[in-house]
Amino acid sequence: VVTLLTDFGWQDPYVAEVKGVLLQTFERLGGGEPWPRVVDLCHTLPPCDVRAAAWFLARVHPNFPPGTVHLAVVDPGVGTSRPVVAVQAARCHFVGPGNGLFRFLVGTADLTVVRLNAATSWRGEGFPPAPTFHGRDVMAPVAARLALGCPIRELGAPGTAADLGSLEAWPAAVESEAVGSSRPIGRIVWIDRFGNAITDIDRASGLGDRLSAGAVLRLAGTEVPGPVLTFAEATGSEPFWYWGSGGKLEVAVDRDSVARRFGWRVGLAVGWTAP
Amino acid sequence: VVTLLTDFGWQDPYVAEVKGVLLQTFERLGGGEPWPRVVDLCHTLPPCDVRAAAWFLARVHPNFPPGTVHLAVVDPGVGTSRPVVAVQAARCHFVGPGNGLFRFLVGTADLTVVRLNAATSWRGEGFPPAPTFHGRDVMAPVAARLALGCPIRELGAPGTAADLGSLEAWPAAVESEAVGSSRPIGRIVWIDRFGNAITDIDRASGLGDRLSAGAVLRLAGTEVPGPVLTFAEATGSEPFWYWGSGGKLEVAVDRDSVARRFGWRVGLAVGWTAP
Amino acid sequence: VVTLLTDFGWQDPYVAEVKGVLLQTFERLGGGEPWPRVVDLCHTLPPCDVRAAAWFLARVHPNFPPGTVHLAVVDPGVGTSRPVVAVQAARCHFVGPGNGLFRFLVGTADLTVVRLNAATSWRGEGFPPAPTFHGRDVMAPVAARLALGCPIRELGAPGTAADLGSLEAWPAAVESEAVGSSRPIGRIVWIDRFGNAITDIDRASGLGDRLSAGAVLRLAGTEVPGPVLTFAEATGSEPFWYWGSGGKLEVAVDRDSVARRFGWRVGLAVGWTAP
Repeated sequence: VVTLLTDFGWQDPYVAEVKGVLLQTFERLGGGEPWPRVVDLCHTLPPCDVRAAAWFLARVHPNFPPGTVHLAVVDPGVGTSRPVVAVQAARCHFVGPGNGLFRFLVGTADLTVVRLNAATSWRGEGFPPAPTFHGRDVMAPVAARLALGCPIRELGAPGTAADLGSLEAWPAAVESEAVGSSRPIGRIVWIDRFGNAITDIDRASGLGDRLSAGAVLRLAGTEVPGPVLTFAEATGSEPFWYWGSGGKLEVAVDRDSVARRFGWRVGLAVGWTAP
Repeated sequence: VVTLLTDFGWQDPYVAEVKGVLLQTFERLGGGEPWPRVVDLCHTLPPCDVRAAAWFLARVHPNFPPGTVHLAVVDPGVGTSRPVVAVQAARCHFVGPGNGLFRFLVGTADLTVVRLNAATSWRGEGFPPAPTFHGRDVMAPVAARLALGCPIRELGAPGTAADLGSLEAWPAAVESEAVGSSRPIGRIVWIDRFGNAITDIDRASGLGDRLSAGAVLRLAGTEVPGPVLTFAEATGSEPFWYWGSGGKLEVAVDRDSVARRFGWRVGLAVGWTAP
Repeated sequence: VVTLLTDFGWQDPYVAEVKGVLLQTFERLGGGEPWPRVVDLCHTLPPCDVRAAAWFLARVHPNFPPGTVHLAVVDPGVGTSRPVVAVQAARCHFVGPGNGLFRFLVGTADLTVVRLNAATSWRGEGFPPAPTFHGRDVMAPVAARLALGCPIRELGAPGTAADLGSLEAWPAAVESEAVGSSRPIGRIVWIDRFGNAITDIDRASGLGDRLSAGAVLRLAGTEVPGPVLTFAEATGSEPFWYWGSGGKLEVAVDRDSVARRFGWRVGLAVGWTAP
């Protein structure tokens, strides 16, 4: 399996070209075996938002079978000195830019990082990489080779965790503005199609115990009761919190967008106040 | 073949997670056979609109080959007492919530309904179903098992047509408002990307004969002549009606959105007046 | 491989129905072989914009492996006298309307054109083609047959390049308005998700030499310096030009939409002025 995660959108030729190169590589090197499957994860990530890409992939990848190759291309620094990497971790492979997108893999047992500086594993003769499209010309051929069983160490030079790069820190202003006098414990990291706000507060964080003991969850001055188990438990049109399907604290209102109702955005800090 | 029909949208992790679980299940239980194919039907259904999902699936499923498994997740009542079901009908399988989505299958010969209350057919140990995401944790593993050939009766407890649930009736206000003095015969059930209005009036309804005999089709006060066979027959920029590719009466204008031009929406009643 | 390129959008049943018919045809005629793969190129082409479809396919198809069947349906004249064609060219097949979409293939060595007027290669008994949906009822079954290895000449009557039709010329007004006193050499043919403007000026056009010798690229009165190799080379928030990943001249600003900033659209002429 090769999965695709990009900020290319669906309306342009870029996703189609990446898929074409994957299939061309399967055809050239696959030797009559059934070709690996190609699965779209998402192509409408916010443009150039590496943090969003990292969040998405960290959440989704554990659902895929061992051996999956995740090709992730959110690469505003394409063509600069940032490395392009292949990573082996968690029984899967990851291919993309070393701009922090794969930072979340650091700490995984048996992490292997390879810098993709070997033109022999790229698209091939007659196809020098376009300086603005390494996703198609460098990363896709490598992802295809990994999916066909090529050992990762043959695809480039040994690298280290430093080659994975780092994500920018969240801007501080948003945090202080939003939390007010409450104690910050996390922030909103995703707003989904239904307008539900997903935070980075983990179920294992102990916040649940505090809130059971009378503490109150707060976002930008609004008190949010909870937890509920299902949306049907919510009464009226008040916001509530619950442990979401990704194991993190989420905030919603039933059949409406909590984000639009309160003007909440990604980056907003979440806090709590003692009873 | 497993098809996917949801209101998850393309921008969130939910579709990707469902696909991952399907592939994980194929990998665990597939035994080296080629994996079933996964096909996206639509993920941008109007959020929580079970009626839209039912309309879409009823129209599309006959185009798929025998043995297809249709996994449909529009499930605003997730985690409540509504059942989760697997259905065998029309030489295919259907998996989803018992909230009316599959009501259209009632009347099909050899209908089999199974309630998916057996944890053994769910995602497996270590993955208790998230109360807000049965599509991933309950329905996807079952759909994968059906696609791998598992008999439907082994996946849960025998159910009945009542377990399929019912759709809400259309709100009456829209109907009386729209039809005026004409005789209501149906309503708009879908507006497509081109702005064409698809109704639920079937070609076999006899309306065609009435309209040939001089009756006039009316929507919200507007007379709509017809039928035309192709859009190229339309003259000028007037609306017209025709028998659409799904066998139902549709209304359009050439190279414009009839829905936007007249402010028509899903639910609007369609009537006719005698000559 | 069968690729799909349409203006159907993702929200309607049309793409799903085409996929269903492809799979139904594989199931009926495939004889137990592994089914060809179905790949979405794009479904959000501007509605009825045959020129956009032609541009997209001309750019993308060389990335796919030999033997690929490209099914392209942007067909505002569906049901009229425009032919439906299958084309063999560049070691691939193309199926769609003869409305200019495949005009770009003229000049390819060994071009074979077949008019799809033989009902025996359509969807089959019980499925007369809907006058408004030849993509599903005529083209998809033919594309499936080609992907299964059926010789193109058995699918219809011999045709000629004239059956491919022609694209409308660009409206002249846009050109004169935009270029001003500069010498027109091309125009914007695509605006991508990032707001970058892709022109039809080829790297082999010699413009690069002129611009190196001091000539200045101009769009609608704005001087655009360049070329840069990567976006990171750009200084500040000024527009710049570069040779894009499709081999054409593109104009952008770093981390912003050049199209929105300057109000540029597809069709705008690009010129240059001597130093």
